[in-house]
Amino acid sequence: MSIKLSTGETLEISEGESLLKALRRQGVYLVSSCGGKGTCGKCRVKIPEGRYRTESTGKLEPPAIRSGTVLACQTFPEEDITVDIPKESRLVVGDVIEISRSRDLFDLLQSLDGEISPILRWLPLDIPPPTINNNIGDLERFRKHLEEKGLKEMRFSHSFVSSLARSLRDAEWKVYLGYTASPEAVLLLPLKGRKRYGMAVDVGTTTIVVYLVDLADGRLIDVGSTYNSQIRHGDDVITRIIYATEGGGLEELRDTVVQDINDLLSPIIEKHSINTDDIESAVIAGNTTMAHIFWGLDPGYIREEPYTPTLNFFPLWSARTAKLDINPQAPVFTIPCVASYVGGDIVAGVLASKMHRRSGTSLFMDIGTNGEIVLGNNEWLVTAACSAGPCFEGSGIRHGMRATEGAIESVRIDPKTFEPSLGVIGKGRPAGICGSGMIDAITEMFLAGVIDQKGTFIKGTASDRVRDGFEGPEFLFYSDSHGEIVLTEVDIENIMRAKAAIYAGISLLLKKVDFMLDDMERIYIAGGFGNYLNIEKAIIIGMLPDLPKDKFVLLGNTSIAGSYLCLLSDHMRKEAEDIAQKMTNIELSVSRRFMDEYISALFLPHTNITLFPTVKKLLKERNK
Amino acid sequence: MSIKLSTGETLEISEGESLLKALRRQGVYLVSSCGGKGTCGKCRVKIPEGRYRTESTGKLEPPAIRSGTVLACQTFPEEDITVDIPKESRLVVGDVIEISRSRDLFDLLQSLDGEISPILRWLPLDIPPPTINNNIGDLERFRKHLEEKGLKEMRFSHSFVSSLARSLRDAEWKVYLGYTASPEAVLLLPLKGRKRYGMAVDVGTTTIVVYLVDLADGRLIDVGSTYNSQIRHGDDVITRIIYATEGGGLEELRDTVVQDINDLLSPIIEKHSINTDDIESAVIAGNTTMAHIFWGLDPGYIREEPYTPTLNFFPLWSARTAKLDINPQAPVFTIPCVASYVGGDIVAGVLASKMHRRSGTSLFMDIGTNGEIVLGNNEWLVTAACSAGPCFEGSGIRHGMRATEGAIESVRIDPKTFEPSLGVIGKGRPAGICGSGMIDAITEMFLAGVIDQKGTFIKGTASDRVRDGFEGPEFLFYSDSHGEIVLTEVDIENIMRAKAAIYAGISLLLKKVDFMLDDMERIYIAGGFGNYLNIEKAIIIGMLPDLPKDKFVLLGNTSIAGSYLCLLSDHMRKEAEDIAQKMTNIELSVSRRFMDEYISALFLPHTNITLFPTVKKLLKERNK
Repeated sequence: MSIKLSTGETLEISEGESLLKALRRQGVYLVSSCGGKGTCGKCRVKIPEGRYRTESTGKLEPPAIRSGTVLACQTFPEEDITVDIPKESRLVVGDVIEISRSRDLFDLLQSLDGEISPILRWLPLDIPPPTINNNIGDLERFRKHLEEKGLKEMRFSHSFVSSLARSLRDAEWKVYLGYTASPEAVLLLPLKGRKRYGMAVDVGTTTIVVYLVDLADGRLIDVGSTYNSQIRHGDDVITRIIYATEGGGLEELRDTVVQDINDLLSPIIEKHSINTDDIESAVIAGNTTMAHIFWGLDPGYIREEPYTPTLNFFPLWSARTAKLDINPQAPVFTIPCVASYVGGDIVAGVLASKMHRRSGTSLFMDIGTNGEIVLGNNEWLVTAACSAGPCFEGSGIRHGMRATEGAIESVRIDPKTFEPSLGVIGKGRPAGICGSGMIDAITEMFLAGVIDQKGTFIKGTASDRVRDGFEGPEFLFYSDSHGEIVLTEVDIENIMRAKAAIYAGISLLLKKVDFMLDDMERIYIAGGFGNYLNIEKAIIIGMLPDLPKDKFVLLGNTSIAGSYLCLLSDHMRKEAEDIAQKMTNIELSVSRRFMDEYISALFLPHTNITLFPTVKKLLKERNK
Repeated sequence: MSIKLSTGETLEISEGESLLKALRRQGVYLVSSCGGKGTCGKCRVKIPEGRYRTESTGKLEPPAIRSGTVLACQTFPEEDITVDIPKESRLVVGDVIEISRSRDLFDLLQSLDGEISPILRWLPLDIPPPTINNNIGDLERFRKHLEEKGLKEMRFSHSFVSSLARSLRDAEWKVYLGYTASPEAVLLLPLKGRKRYGMAVDVGTTTIVVYLVDLADGRLIDVGSTYNSQIRHGDDVITRIIYATEGGGLEELRDTVVQDINDLLSPIIEKHSINTDDIESAVIAGNTTMAHIFWGLDPGYIREEPYTPTLNFFPLWSARTAKLDINPQAPVFTIPCVASYVGGDIVAGVLASKMHRRSGTSLFMDIGTNGEIVLGNNEWLVTAACSAGPCFEGSGIRHGMRATEGAIESVRIDPKTFEPSLGVIGKGRPAGICGSGMIDAITEMFLAGVIDQKGTFIKGTASDRVRDGFEGPEFLFYSDSHGEIVLTEVDIENIMRAKAAIYAGISLLLKKVDFMLDDMERIYIAGGFGNYLNIEKAIIIGMLPDLPKDKFVLLGNTSIAGSYLCLLSDHMRKEAEDIAQKMTNIELSVSRRFMDEYISALFLPHTNITLFPTVKKLLKERNK
C-alpha cells in the first residue's frame, strides 16, 4: 500500500505496519516522545483520503479527533492513503542548535590543574637506521630503542605495525611516537609541523555537543550542538533501551548517535581546514545508557533488576572501534559511570563543579532528560537518580516542547484579571511551553489562586481561561486561529511528580548521610535547563530547597565541561576515575522512605511548609 | 575488445592490457612462474583468430613459435581474438593435494615437552551474581573476581566486553574464561560441554597445509593441503613482493592466501561437524615474506637493502584481524622469523628437528621454494638463506613441474644405449619433470657421460636423444604425439646454480663457525622435497655434502610440524622464540667468500673433488 504525503512524496507501507513505523523506516520522523506506545499524543497527523484503522486515540482532544486527527503510531491504513503532517508533529533533528559557549573553560582547567597533558603522550625518537650488519626487524629495532628510553612492555596493534615500516622511512627514522599510559603505541608521525587536536563530546539523551580543542594550548576551536537523532525512538533512556533490546535497534541507535557526532564535526573541520587525522584523541561523557549505546553495548540489563550496567569503567578503545571520523587510531576516553542511572555526565559535572575538592558539603543537581543528585565534599560523595523524567523538556506535557524558538519560557499571570503575559523564545508566535515556562506557569497559577497546593484547579475562578477540557480542567495560555496552548491538570500532575521526585531525592540523600539542608555550602545546578531556571519560582513550587539565592550556582552544561577537562589533562582523567570510584549510589527506586518523601513533596511547595519558610511567608503575605 | 576462449567463454580485454593480465583479472589463471615478465615461457597459448602484437617470445622454441604459440604475458590483442589455452598452461590451484600425514607428531611433542598447554588458558569462574545492594558494572565485578584469583591487569577488548553481559547471564555466572598470557581476556564460555580445537598452518610459498587439532589431547583431527593461489603472481617470494609493492597487490595476495586457508578448513569442519567458534587458537608458520603478506604487512623492505622485515616477532593478533574463519576472537600465534630470508618456517623446522637441544652439532636444510640452512647445537645456531630459487619445484626449467601427477620423479639412463627409463608419479603419461627427477636425470646423464663435470653436453654422444634444440643442446627424455620432454643445457645450468648455492651456503656457514663437515652429527633435510630425495644422487651432483648416508634424516614438512608443536605448548612457543632470538643470520648475498664458494660448487660434484671422496671413488670405478 502507499502513503501519499502532502509534500507530494509517495512512500509505501506494509500490511499491519503502523503509520509511524512506515514513515520512520522511510526517513520521515515524527515527534514520538513515548517511542510509539500511543501515550504521549505527539505524533499527530490527518488523513484526508483513504481507509484506515486506529487502535487508540490516546491523549487526543475530542475536537482534534473530530477534525480527523489521529496518532500515527496507532493508525494502520487499509488502503492507499494521503497523510498531512502538521509542523508541530515533524521531528527536526540534525540541525545545528545554538549553545552558549563557555569562554572560561581554560580558566577552569587551570584552576583545577596547571598542566595540559592529553591522552596521547608524545616522545621524539631518533632511531639509528638499519644497516646490512644490523638488519633486525623494524619493530624489534623500535622496541629496543624504546626500552633504552625506559619505555618497556609497549603494546603494538596490528594497525600500528601495518604502517610502521613506511612511517619510519618516510621520516628518516626521526619520529614522534604517540602512546597511551598503558603503554600502547598509537601513532607515529614525522618530527615537524604537526598539529594536535582533540574532541570533547557530551552525548546527552536529548542533545549532543561537540567541542574541538587545540591540545597544544587548550584553546576551544569550535563548538557544535544538535539534537540526538535517537529522539526518533523516544525521549527518555527507557524508551531507547526498549528500542535497542526489544526492537533489535541497538546498532541503529549506535549509528545514529555516532552519525550525529560526525555530522557536527564535519563542518567544523572544514571551516578550520583541519585534517581529521590530526584529531588524535576524544573524550565522551554521557549517562550510562548513552555510553553503552555509543559503544554498541547492549543496555538491556540497565533496565532489569538489579540494574547492572555492562561496565562503568571503560577501557580506552579506538576511534575506529567507535566509528568516529577522526584519526582511526585515536584513543577514546569514556568518562566513567557510577551506576545504571548515574553516568559519566554526572561524574563530569562533579569534576567541573569542583565540589569534590571542597571541604564544605555541596549539593549538585543535573536536571536534564532525567534528574541526578550528588551530595558531598572532598571526603565523600553520594548520588542518586530520581526518575524525574523528561517533562521539563516537554515530554508528557500536552503542549510541552524544548527550549527552542517558539517556546513559552516565562509566564506572568495578573492576579486580578488572570490574563497571562508570555515570554516567548524568538519573540514570535508561541508553539508550546518549555521547562522554565512550566515552572513559571505553575508558580503564577498557584500564587493567583487558580490552582491549589495539590496542583488541582480551584473551582470558580472568574476567568474564561480556566475551562473544562476533555482531560479535565485546563488553563488556556494562548490561542489563535492555528490552535491553542493549554496546561491541563494532567500536565500539572506530571510536573508535580517530576519536581517531587527531585526534592524527595534531595531529602532522602540528606537523611542518608545525616545532613541538613542548611549544611549545604553551595547548590550547583547543571543541565541544559540550568541556564534559564528561575530559582525563586523553582523554590516556590518546591522543586529546589528553600535556601538563600546566593548559595545557588547555575553551571550550564557541566557534562561537556568535564569532557573538555578530561580531554586535556591526565590529572582530570584520574580525578574523574576517583570521583566515579568514590561515589556511593543510592537506589531510590527500592527505598520505601523515598516513596514517603515523594508523596510529601507532591504538594506546592511541600506538605511540610516549614521546610519552605520564605514560601510560607510569601503565601501569608498573599493571603492578607 | 573481447577474448573468446575455446571453452566458449567470452571475456573482455582493455587496450594495452596483456592477455595474461586480462585472463587473470577475469579469473582464468595461467602458469606464470616469473610473474609475467616473459622469462619463464610457461603461459603459452595459441590464438587461432584475431590480430595481436607480441613483445617477446622469451623461452619459446622455434617450432612452438611456428605453430603459433605465444606467451600470454607478452601478447596484446589488437582486435577481438580467440584463445586456446593448452592444459599445461592452466594453473590449477585450490584443489586439495595429498600430503603424507605425520602420525608421530604427538610423540614428537611428548619427546620435547610433556604437557599440553595451548595459547588460551582456561579458568573456571563462579562469580557471585549482582544484587540490588551490589550492582556494580559486570566488567568491574568480573575484574574484581579475577583479582581475587590473582589475575591482575587483565586487558579487555571491545569485542570481549560486547558479549560479556549476556555470556555471564546465559551461563548463570558460572563461566570459563579463556585468556592469553599477556594477560588479555579472549573468550567466555559456559562451564560445560565445550570442545577445544586449534589450527596449525604452514603458509609455504608454493603449498599451504592446514592441521586441525584437538587441543584436549593433541589429536590430529584432519589435514588439508593445497597450492598457494598466490602462484598466479609468480613462483618465488621476489615475484610476490614485486606484485605486492609495484603491482599494488598486497591486499589481493593477502586475501588469496587467507582464502586458501579458509577453503581448506571449511570441508574439514563440515566433515567432522565442528563449530568454527570452537577453534580457539591458530599458529601460522611461514617464511618472512609469507608471514608479512598473511598479516597484510608491506613486504617491500624485505627486498631492499639492508633487507629489513617490518617485524620478526609478531604480537598475538586476533583471527578477526587475520580474517580467518575460526572464532574471531581466537589469538593467532605467528612463529617468529629471524631475518628477511630466514622465516618462521625455519624456526619451526629447527624446533621439530630438536637440533637446538642436542649438544652435538647438526646441519638443518630446508629445500623448498628457496633453500635455507641452519647449523648449530644447544648453545648456538647460525643460519643463512642461499637463494637456491624454486627450480626444484619446476620453475625456470623448460619442462619443469611440481611433484604431482604426471611428473617424472626418477630417471635411469642405460649407459650403453642411452635409453632412459622413467618413474612417473601416477604411472600415466609424463607431463614434465620434478625436482627429484632432475637430480636423477643429471646424475644419470653425468654417469653415462652425456654431460661433463660443468654440466655441458659432451659432443659426439651416440644417441639421437642428445640433439640441438633452439636454446642449445638438450636431452630428449620423452616424446609422443602430444609433445616432448627435454632437459636443456640451460635447464641444467639452472639446476647447477641451485645446487651450488645450497652447497656454497653450507660451506660458508661451516667456515664462519670454524667447523668441518665431519663434525656434523646429523644432517636434517626438510621441505616438501625432503620426502622424495635420493640422497646418493644428491651427493653425486654435489648438492648434499659427501657424508655417510646414516647421518641424513629426511624430516618432510617441518614447518607444519613446528606449527603443530607451538599450537599445543607454551614451552614450544617459548622455545621457538628462543630459537629465533638466538639464531645468527649470515647475509650470504653480501659475502665475497660466498661467491668463491658458489663458483667452486658450479661443478659436478665440485671443483674440489676431494670434498666428495665417495663420488671420486665412483667416478674412478666408472672410468675403469
